[in-house]
Amino acid sequence: MSKSSLVKSILSVLTLGLMAGTVLSAEKMIAPTPNGIEIPKNYKNWQMIAVSHRTDNQTLRAILGNPLAVKAAKQGNTKPWPDGAILAKIVWKDSDHPLWQAATVPDALVHAEFMIKDSKKFPATEGWGFARWSGMEQKPYGKDASFAYECLSCHQPAKANDYVFTKSAQLP
Amino acid sequence: MSKSSLVKSILSVLTLGLMAGTVLSAEKMIAPTPNGIEIPKNYKNWQMIAVSHRTDNQTLRAILGNPLAVKAAKQGNTKPWPDGAILAKIVWKDSDHPLWQAATVPDALVHAEFMIKDSKKFPATEGWGFARWSGMEQKPYGKDASFAYECLSCHQPAKANDYVFTKSAQLP
Repeated sequence: MSKSSLVKSILSVLTLGLMAGTVLSAEKMIAPTPNGIEIPKNYKNWQMIAVSHRTDNQTLRAILGNPLAVKAAKQGNTKPWPDGAILAKIVWKDSDHPLWQAATVPDALVHAEFMIKDSKKFPATEGWGFARWSGMEQKPYGKDASFAYECLSCHQPAKANDYVFTKSAQLP
Repeated sequence: MSKSSLVKSILSVLTLGLMAGTVLSAEKMIAPTPNGIEIPKNYKNWQMIAVSHRTDNQTLRAILGNPLAVKAAKQGNTKPWPDGAILAKIVWKDSDHPLWQAATVPDALVHAEFMIKDSKKFPATEGWGFARWSGMEQKPYGKDASFAYECLSCHQPAKANDYVFTKSAQLP
């Protein structure tokens, strides 16, 4: 083997290695929840519907929606929400801003949770598929599929709003 | 004129009227700020960078970024932020959630404000163009162009972070 073909071979192997690394990283497996829900694709790019701060568990939240949910929220078409609407709630521990004492800002990610409206698929939980992935490792929440009743139970106070606490934040 | 052409004419006039209404509404004029900044297009669809809650003025905030700002934030390329990056901060009065006492949620919109990085265009304010539009009527803030020094003055504590208080919220 000539020197140049050796260099070429080494470069090829390195390139393949890098490509494999990229593919593995892009395809990082996130396990589905015990009720068989896969994490919605691209949710981090969804549009914001509202924000909130819970002082009972010291968390800040961003509520995002898939395009169908954002449209429904804008049109006030939320009693009930249409099939296909997905709401994402991203939750962080709160913390004081080091440079502005009276500002509370996100600290570590707690979890990302979802409500997926599909009245045919999730009749037992009022038409909503509940799902949550905890922490940066995105570990699916729940020992078995019954965890969804725990979710629904907490959402009972919002029954009149199709079990959704979030109200769209006012925007021009 | 026959009955059917009369009906057609009336329908045409009604259709044109509706179309004109739509165009006027879509082209609703929003005045530029006294320092000559036009409100960034499409900012309500931008991706979220962080959220915050200020207890000194009882406001909840969503911080969004244009695609260049989101990319810079993800890469930690923010000291300084690159020219072309735009940060939007949407600010609402806070209020208690009627169905969950310990949750603070957005009430009325206070304003949408922006930091536009352009080191050539805004050398007097550390490379940032400051802009704010108040309320649902989106009234430009500031009596004259000097209002931007008021903005910069409040941002001095964040000088080491290129005058930006916002740190990206952790996401998987």
